[in-house]
Amino acid sequence: MINMLDTFFNPKSVAVIGASPEKRSIGYSILKTLKNSFKGKIYAVNPNHNKILGLKSYFSVREVKTDLAVIVVPKKIVPLVLKDCVKAKVKSVVIITAGYSEIGDKKSEEELRKIIKGSRTRILGVNCLGILDTHTGLDTLFLPEPKLKRPRKGGVSFISQSGAFGSTVLDLFAYDDVGIAKFLSYGNQTDIKDWELLEWLGNDPLTKVIVIYMEGVSDGRKFFEVSKKVSKKKPVVVFKAGKTESGSKAAASHTGSLAGSYDVYRAAFKQAGIFEAHSVEEIYDLSKALEFQKPNKGSVAVVTNGGGFGVVTSDFLIQNKVKLANFSPDTEKKLRKILPKYANIHNPLDLIGDADHKRYEKALDILIKDKNVSGLLIITLLQTVSLTPKVLDVIKKINKTTKPIVVCATGGKYTQKHMLELESSHIPVYLTPERAVKAIKVLLD
Amino acid sequence: MINMLDTFFNPKSVAVIGASPEKRSIGYSILKTLKNSFKGKIYAVNPNHNKILGLKSYFSVREVKTDLAVIVVPKKIVPLVLKDCVKAKVKSVVIITAGYSEIGDKKSEEELRKIIKGSRTRILGVNCLGILDTHTGLDTLFLPEPKLKRPRKGGVSFISQSGAFGSTVLDLFAYDDVGIAKFLSYGNQTDIKDWELLEWLGNDPLTKVIVIYMEGVSDGRKFFEVSKKVSKKKPVVVFKAGKTESGSKAAASHTGSLAGSYDVYRAAFKQAGIFEAHSVEEIYDLSKALEFQKPNKGSVAVVTNGGGFGVVTSDFLIQNKVKLANFSPDTEKKLRKILPKYANIHNPLDLIGDADHKRYEKALDILIKDKNVSGLLIITLLQTVSLTPKVLDVIKKINKTTKPIVVCATGGKYTQKHMLELESSHIPVYLTPERAVKAIKVLLD
Repeated sequence: MINMLDTFFNPKSVAVIGASPEKRSIGYSILKTLKNSFKGKIYAVNPNHNKILGLKSYFSVREVKTDLAVIVVPKKIVPLVLKDCVKAKVKSVVIITAGYSEIGDKKSEEELRKIIKGSRTRILGVNCLGILDTHTGLDTLFLPEPKLKRPRKGGVSFISQSGAFGSTVLDLFAYDDVGIAKFLSYGNQTDIKDWELLEWLGNDPLTKVIVIYMEGVSDGRKFFEVSKKVSKKKPVVVFKAGKTESGSKAAASHTGSLAGSYDVYRAAFKQAGIFEAHSVEEIYDLSKALEFQKPNKGSVAVVTNGGGFGVVTSDFLIQNKVKLANFSPDTEKKLRKILPKYANIHNPLDLIGDADHKRYEKALDILIKDKNVSGLLIITLLQTVSLTPKVLDVIKKINKTTKPIVVCATGGKYTQKHMLELESSHIPVYLTPERAVKAIKVLLD
Repeated sequence: MINMLDTFFNPKSVAVIGASPEKRSIGYSILKTLKNSFKGKIYAVNPNHNKILGLKSYFSVREVKTDLAVIVVPKKIVPLVLKDCVKAKVKSVVIITAGYSEIGDKKSEEELRKIIKGSRTRILGVNCLGILDTHTGLDTLFLPEPKLKRPRKGGVSFISQSGAFGSTVLDLFAYDDVGIAKFLSYGNQTDIKDWELLEWLGNDPLTKVIVIYMEGVSDGRKFFEVSKKVSKKKPVVVFKAGKTESGSKAAASHTGSLAGSYDVYRAAFKQAGIFEAHSVEEIYDLSKALEFQKPNKGSVAVVTNGGGFGVVTSDFLIQNKVKLANFSPDTEKKLRKILPKYANIHNPLDLIGDADHKRYEKALDILIKDKNVSGLLIITLLQTVSLTPKVLDVIKKINKTTKPIVVCATGGKYTQKHMLELESSHIPVYLTPERAVKAIKVLLD
């Protein structure tokens, strides 16, 4: 079953059915993007033109031999061109075209299912954006590049029921320099279901973390059965939309989904070992943490040069059920030696406002060796007179150990500029303590 | 009573007791900052020097006549110089020096209270950063300017029990271009209490919104009595730290506060008409909304060009108890005329992925006139082919009406660049729907 999806991810050739020379059309946008990014063979299919964007335009997909076809024709022609795909033995078809069950027309979707029945053709969509694969250069997103930046190659694979939602989150990933393996917008799940994609990505060696935006599952039992297996191999993060009655109604007219009872979903996520993101911000905050760092199990040590941040971070850790490590007696003894007399030796550890990078280095070296400490949440107020950007090198050095670390640095331009430097060394940095807490939670859970 | 605080905000002269020529000292940093920013007379006081930073250095504050004195001398000399201040009839004294009840020494703080007893001298502090007043240029923060940018003049006044916490949030304000009237770090509340500052700011015509970072109140009854009065005049936003047992412990060793039961605080905030910020991000998100927009009471209309965002925003609105407006029959009729046939006319209103700025303009013009609509949450995915930055002008035009608006635009560099333009027109923009929802909530509550 599963290997029937392979040609979606490793196609040697792609046909754009409904390619167009008209600059504001989707058929133009997709062909143009593919020409810039895709490494294999590209075919334009449109019976009304001879050439599009310098490529020969074919009358039908039956004239070419292609692994993958992207359909962007008007709804009434979709059955016709899909039949052509089946006849041409195209294994993978992405149908971008919308206007099916999301507006109440289930019948036309059923018709498409009938067309592929018994064949080896599989459909991703309808009502979707398709695929972005940073490794093969396959890119069917019709949101143009200067407006939506594509992320770099990396370990996060993101499957999204909503195309527009998913792709703007991609744009955030790109901004934060979080690396992507694959992005898949799966729309109405006419044929290929969410759990099939999840299963495929679970076996994909290029995928380190799986992130899902979901309005409603196709088959609850099957989805959670697969999730349980996959989440043992790699972390799975889900954002569930349509949690409320009002949200469910909106979902029904968006991807034709039955959003279902959120309480049931929540319990099932937990049981399946899935992490739930509760906000859009959390989707990329958790993805970043899991892409940059190796998870571990246990308790956290917090280090800060601002007492107020220690107070606030304590609160957020407790509220989020993250365990604060008890320092070992040996650690306490060592810390007492290197800290000013008036410092309190407890967790969160306040290095005091006059801490410099050397005090950070000594304290972090002691804490990382403590068996009770499984991960570090390092708060740096770079605004103090004493703390210079040399602390960045200290943090980079500590990052070479096997325990996960996250950094919190609240501040404006000066702080953010320096923190970008840490991110380029794959250390996740967050602007506020609550975001850093959620990141360390996902790494220690 | 209250006008005894006036000289903290409108001093004609400031003395820095403990001014120093040593570049890494606090006494140097404060004097240097004041020289750049303060419009009145500045005196340096330090018996060991004749001149500091080109200013004559006085032996004692008694040699000069000053409204305000900032004390940055070591703890053991504080009583001596404070006595000098009383003798010199200095009305306002800021004591930066730390090491009092926050490390268990209540006695030394009591001693300071005895020194000013019966005089007209009042103390802000101890263990604080002092004051930043964008209107008078008074600035005693010793976090140097390139590292911590000062915000522009504006309507938010921020009182913070934690100096470092407060000032890094200031840095965020500056980054987001939120305007500040006054920032006050009040530390251990040795003399001047939180409620006195709140009362003063309640009567300050330059203060439009009051934001408080609090670990523990000095006098609960008094604080909530004053809050009730002030919150009728202008919005008050509080962030409470030390909500959990672990956080409370950290607070005790930070500002010597008894954090108390959070449940009691929460109930009291509600009763006093205070808005509670639940995260650091919310502090500046709500401040920005209240500084930029005029509150109103009632229900919200949501407009989007991305269906998934409609679903997600619905959920967040319901979860945050914000009412979605029921469009009037007249509005529905008018919307049906201007939208594509397959569009669903309900709230959130999905303008569909191919919406351009003209469709936004028509829809917003109809919605703003609906009596059932008290405010707008406008979602713009600028990444689509159809939506150009011309939509910014549409939003700016709508902003001239009296109903509050907030904008959500999720995306990377391209989106964020354009959205900064909206913020310069005092339209609050948020990167994610959950943040926009909390902002419209505070404007409609």
